[in-house]
Amino acid sequence: MKAISRAAIIAVGSELLTPSRTDTNSLFITEQLNLLGIEVAFKNIVGDDRAELENAVRGAIARVDLLVCCGGLGPTDDDLTRPVVADVLKRPLVEDEEITARIRARFQGRGLEMPEINRRQAMVPVGARVLENANGTAPGLWIEEVERVVLLLPGPPRELKPMMTAVADGPLLERAAGQPLVRRVIRITGRSESHTEEAVQPLYAEWSRAAIPISVTILASLGQIELHLSACCTSRAAAEAALDDAVERVKAVMGMHVYSTDGRALEEVVGAILTDRKLTIGVAESCTGGLITSRLTDVPGSSRYVERGLVAYSNNSKVELLGVPEATLAAHGAVSEPVASAMAEGVRSRSKVDVGIGVTGIAGPDGGTPEKPVGTVAIAAVSPSGSRVRTFRFVGGREMVKFQASQAALDMVRRMLLEP
Amino acid sequence: MKAISRAAIIAVGSELLTPSRTDTNSLFITEQLNLLGIEVAFKNIVGDDRAELENAVRGAIARVDLLVCCGGLGPTDDDLTRPVVADVLKRPLVEDEEITARIRARFQGRGLEMPEINRRQAMVPVGARVLENANGTAPGLWIEEVERVVLLLPGPPRELKPMMTAVADGPLLERAAGQPLVRRVIRITGRSESHTEEAVQPLYAEWSRAAIPISVTILASLGQIELHLSACCTSRAAAEAALDDAVERVKAVMGMHVYSTDGRALEEVVGAILTDRKLTIGVAESCTGGLITSRLTDVPGSSRYVERGLVAYSNNSKVELLGVPEATLAAHGAVSEPVASAMAEGVRSRSKVDVGIGVTGIAGPDGGTPEKPVGTVAIAAVSPSGSRVRTFRFVGGREMVKFQASQAALDMVRRMLLEP
Repeated sequence: MKAISRAAIIAVGSELLTPSRTDTNSLFITEQLNLLGIEVAFKNIVGDDRAELENAVRGAIARVDLLVCCGGLGPTDDDLTRPVVADVLKRPLVEDEEITARIRARFQGRGLEMPEINRRQAMVPVGARVLENANGTAPGLWIEEVERVVLLLPGPPRELKPMMTAVADGPLLERAAGQPLVRRVIRITGRSESHTEEAVQPLYAEWSRAAIPISVTILASLGQIELHLSACCTSRAAAEAALDDAVERVKAVMGMHVYSTDGRALEEVVGAILTDRKLTIGVAESCTGGLITSRLTDVPGSSRYVERGLVAYSNNSKVELLGVPEATLAAHGAVSEPVASAMAEGVRSRSKVDVGIGVTGIAGPDGGTPEKPVGTVAIAAVSPSGSRVRTFRFVGGREMVKFQASQAALDMVRRMLLEP
Repeated sequence: MKAISRAAIIAVGSELLTPSRTDTNSLFITEQLNLLGIEVAFKNIVGDDRAELENAVRGAIARVDLLVCCGGLGPTDDDLTRPVVADVLKRPLVEDEEITARIRARFQGRGLEMPEINRRQAMVPVGARVLENANGTAPGLWIEEVERVVLLLPGPPRELKPMMTAVADGPLLERAAGQPLVRRVIRITGRSESHTEEAVQPLYAEWSRAAIPISVTILASLGQIELHLSACCTSRAAAEAALDDAVERVKAVMGMHVYSTDGRALEEVVGAILTDRKLTIGVAESCTGGLITSRLTDVPGSSRYVERGLVAYSNNSKVELLGVPEATLAAHGAVSEPVASAMAEGVRSRSKVDVGIGVTGIAGPDGGTPEKPVGTVAIAAVSPSGSRVRTFRFVGGREMVKFQASQAALDMVRRMLLEP
């Protein structure tokens, strides 16, 4: 059997050929393949169209060792991946009774009867290995030939990701050929892309000449910058060590602006600090509308430290729920540092938690004034050891302002707890 | 010369084959093509690799009337689109002195001398029409043959977009087969993909035989199903009318499960009903952790109807903030319909709003029991005209449970207000 070093990915679905949808599954798949030293030679995107899909499958399997198809495994007429691949590989489709039983049980578990069309999802090309789907009805398929492997994955990311991970740890690991490509993601907040670039630039030249060269991509997104470092080496351990060293160099330059080097989101980092110090937190939000509390509670186990969250959208609710003095509101306006501080203090004392956050601002599109334009947000954080307050000016539309404000508030808590 | 009705897009660049970058240029290109009635048959993504690019170009021009390549027009060794396309079309490359002069002037305008390698950007396949680039050095190329057109565009979006717009208004307009493609998106919640498919299936056959055929794609995502309908007709107005009719047919079959036919999200639909009826809302959330309030406040103008949101994560906060009787908590447990109802009533009466939502459940991964497994969520809604309460069993991980619960809660409010 041939070792796998080159792959192609075909994303299937007519929605991926419209102006509103882009294929993102291939990014996760690529990451998993690269970690095994498998390079992606090209990607194709085809609609739910038999002729185009067949042409793409035929063209791809002639050029690579591994073809990954994602999508088109549903139960409807539109879902063509299974029959087309079976055709091209000349393997008849037969019903796998075990899969039918599993799908039926899945529907029954939710008090529903399995629609007959779902039987299609149990059709398997002869000789294929069935990959279980923990989060949906469509099983994946691993079809091994002498010269190549064809892997079929379901389209929904929550079904595809665990399945791809299982394949990368299992059958694919055994057949992968290449030099592992290892990556690290460094997450930074509170700095612009150009500031980050300027600070890190001197390291680039050095890294490109190193025994194990490290390449860098800088990616700016809303409220954060990511540095993606990668190294390729026959020894995975050596590549990991080179990257560990590189990460330390970036941390030395960027200091507290680096909040994560292990893939964790900011809410996870804050949650870990709170857990570590046995602190509880309460959040008082106005313009972020619950987003900060929602992000904090996205983290498993957050019920140990999130006591409550109060979304005080009206002035009245700021007074009633948080005890913000009416005089403070009248003197400074709802969007002001004194009100943010009173909100943070209010949620902290009333709910008897250790850390309080207060956020008040103008998310837009209406409500801005010349002195306080849309995007103006006052954020306060209080803890037993001190407090902080600051006014930000964020750019962009309503949801962008909300997200950036939530990012700044979580980062303020992180820094307040970590810095002396 | 053949009229253009089918296109393919090839995005060129090795960065597009890494785990962190996705091609987005094709979305803009697709939009422009669709408006001229040109369908995108498939998309390819290839790296800066001569063999793969050549294979993709050769394969594509055999199947479509228009091939659009974006990227790979820079001045470096990596930039292969120009020579590869010239090779495949058997048109020698010759230097266009006018382009060289223009690039030289561009550099001089910034006080710089043109590097010699930039001459490559002035190399043009014989017979090609040069497309000016207002925002960069790489000109685009329009290469017209009897059977097809090949269009080369630069990769940076700010260079590509104005050039594509100019092409769509100019040479492409003259050759487009010219049946505009119009789309509608119908959003459905509270039904599975297969149930929706079964219900709508009888319409498919009819639509495919209609005077203006309508094609349908069904897309399932978390907590909702989307039906994408599209129609293609020489008269745009006729296509719109056919789609209007088709949307009504789907509404007749799916009834209240259809929540939007105009692109609006569920929180916008709920917001519009509240605004319309001059009602205010308060939300009491446990397992959704603020997500419902955050979604409601994503909508511009929501401060008119969102009075407050209370995230009562601990039992203590449910009693203190919402007045949930301790006896109810003790008798039924925190995750129960009586507690959800008491939360909805509590937020409604304490904050003096018209509509109250109460949500309590187990988002996981911990906290499940045999009787109340992870994913069990009790949701209640109260209004002046009535109340509802129901227990759901959602599947998937923590964030998935949170999202589905928020979707079900918003939908419960929508139905409570719309149904007699």
